[in-house]
Amino acid sequence: MMDDATDTFAHGACEAVVKVALKDSSYPVFIGDGLIASAGQFIDSALPGARCAVVSDANVAPLYLAPLKESLEARGAFLGDAVVAPGEQSKSFPVLARLCETLLDLGVERGDCVIALGGGVIGDLAGFAASILRRGVRSVQIPTSLLAQVDSSVGGKTGIDTKQGKNLIGTFHQPSLVLADTGALATLPPREFRAGYAEVMKYGLLGDAPFFSWLEKHWEKVFSGNGPERARAIETSVRAKAAIVAADEREETGTRALLNLGHTFGHALEAFAGYSDRLLHGEAIAIGQRLAFTYSVEQGLCAKEDALRVERQLAKVGLPSKIADIPGKAPTPGQLLRLMAQDKKVQGGKLALVLVRGIGQAYLERDVPTETLTAFLKKECGQAA
Amino acid sequence: MMDDATDTFAHGACEAVVKVALKDSSYPVFIGDGLIASAGQFIDSALPGARCAVVSDANVAPLYLAPLKESLEARGAFLGDAVVAPGEQSKSFPVLARLCETLLDLGVERGDCVIALGGGVIGDLAGFAASILRRGVRSVQIPTSLLAQVDSSVGGKTGIDTKQGKNLIGTFHQPSLVLADTGALATLPPREFRAGYAEVMKYGLLGDAPFFSWLEKHWEKVFSGNGPERARAIETSVRAKAAIVAADEREETGTRALLNLGHTFGHALEAFAGYSDRLLHGEAIAIGQRLAFTYSVEQGLCAKEDALRVERQLAKVGLPSKIADIPGKAPTPGQLLRLMAQDKKVQGGKLALVLVRGIGQAYLERDVPTETLTAFLKKECGQAA
Repeated sequence: MMDDATDTFAHGACEAVVKVALKDSSYPVFIGDGLIASAGQFIDSALPGARCAVVSDANVAPLYLAPLKESLEARGAFLGDAVVAPGEQSKSFPVLARLCETLLDLGVERGDCVIALGGGVIGDLAGFAASILRRGVRSVQIPTSLLAQVDSSVGGKTGIDTKQGKNLIGTFHQPSLVLADTGALATLPPREFRAGYAEVMKYGLLGDAPFFSWLEKHWEKVFSGNGPERARAIETSVRAKAAIVAADEREETGTRALLNLGHTFGHALEAFAGYSDRLLHGEAIAIGQRLAFTYSVEQGLCAKEDALRVERQLAKVGLPSKIADIPGKAPTPGQLLRLMAQDKKVQGGKLALVLVRGIGQAYLERDVPTETLTAFLKKECGQAA
Repeated sequence: MMDDATDTFAHGACEAVVKVALKDSSYPVFIGDGLIASAGQFIDSALPGARCAVVSDANVAPLYLAPLKESLEARGAFLGDAVVAPGEQSKSFPVLARLCETLLDLGVERGDCVIALGGGVIGDLAGFAASILRRGVRSVQIPTSLLAQVDSSVGGKTGIDTKQGKNLIGTFHQPSLVLADTGALATLPPREFRAGYAEVMKYGLLGDAPFFSWLEKHWEKVFSGNGPERARAIETSVRAKAAIVAADEREETGTRALLNLGHTFGHALEAFAGYSDRLLHGEAIAIGQRLAFTYSVEQGLCAKEDALRVERQLAKVGLPSKIADIPGKAPTPGQLLRLMAQDKKVQGGKLALVLVRGIGQAYLERDVPTETLTAFLKKECGQAA
């Protein structure tokens, strides 16, 4: 989708660079093994003179804060750190408020920088804090989960949750730099890796059929270690994300909404499951993608075989694909519809969904009839009974 | 400073229009008597189809919410209202969190709009909420205090306070429209009007000596009712603000920092006085302006007569000009210095101040020696003993 990664950077460990080319704020995504330990060097090149406060969580900090801190201290650029509790619960107003006060106490000034060291939760929370601290300071994303590396660290969406739903409060605030250290994936629990893989699949499903075919062939190598297949899957995903974000930075034309394939269903399922270990974000998106394909098949938009390929790939890697796969009590169609109505794509009360005409052919349908959707959800929720 | 107000608008009550010409988001400021009652018409022209949620406080809502609501309802554009407690204390994380949840409950979608109906506190708080709600919805400012009409409603600065200081958390989020209803000033307490006048004076002092001379001559008419002098003072102030914001929207070149004349001292005094009725923002800025002039005189930058003219004008309108004018215990120089160090203009630990070479000739001094400032504050705080 985008071929502009030819900038040369003198950093040994870096295996690929993807440039996110925006109108006001282009920035590079470096992908490679061991980038955390040389983060000071990268940040010094991108933001000379900036001092850094690191935000992380209690799972990631014991593993990667020390090497990051050392690398920053070597350049006199470490201001301090703020470690929050792991999990979606930290994406809340009270945690945000405490984090902002901590960052002010650490002495973060306008020319300084907030580093997000962790998965999607830390990226969203720390990115949001950076965007409102002193009306905006720079941020650097160091994603340590597969999901964050291929998706949430790139593109500048930040946010927290409220009781009404996920990511309903936040900003668009592009980072100055993203360092995706593929070495960090070695410590990622297998379930988290699988959840991130749902977003990797997404890029194939929404706009790159050959990539999805490649994943069908090579997924075992993507899962089995830090080899060239894994690096290729991450780089291809980041490239796809960067191109879409460059085309529609603030979700105004509908292009960026394609990244929401499976997400309207998925967010409702996550909300139903209470944003808990019962259903990880990536698992919800896996089910959501299958639902988007099946719904599209039922509307006569998409060949049945394509939906089956999606379902088979999810099954092979061990991801859920049905509402019935969620442990515990099943949601009712009415519950899901109400939760789907909180989606940010709703306009004038009309529900929008990303649908497909086949693998690699997603599009935004801006006016989904409630009756058709209700009938569909009744069938899908019924499978759980 | 700016001559581009020739757009024609077919709204009877409007006496002046000032355009804030920005790269991405130009918008008009309408100034006139009775604009609140025809707000629906203005908003419909600027944001066709947008529904509106109104944010106000318990002082302003009983006076102006009903006519605003009626005007919006006539166009089917009223979603509901959220009324918060009056005063700076509402610029806090807990109030912001509750406000955001209320706005979500009211059903504000991406294409809708948040209206700030009130003074500077409401403008800052509601503007901030709009900027982070669903990653940003539009806002309309309807300032009802003199201070908000001539200063805070124009230019897109939003924010809340933390224990570390004022406006340390916030965003740049330009409104789509500003309606300055000069009729609303009739219900403004005299002390609040005076406080707003400190910001009117500021535009003369920072860059427009003839305007300050004009104020010296006509201030009584500006204070005494809704006549042409008051309208001229407001329009001149808004024009000055608009030109400065257009030149430096995000406070990057130093131009916008000129609007901070008197504010580094003033914010420290406000923080010392606990952001309370003991010292209103405009009163703190009045003292701060006099301090900036006296400091400039002592540095040999400015003629003594200019500082005396500032002091005399403050005395005439009944504004404080000395630290000793603050009721209660006086601050120590050390206390003030520590509070001044939280200023957003601090870079690399260096304190910046807006100083003057005379009336109408402000400039940003980026490296103020702490020793000189300490000696100065010792003298000024001594006056309080």
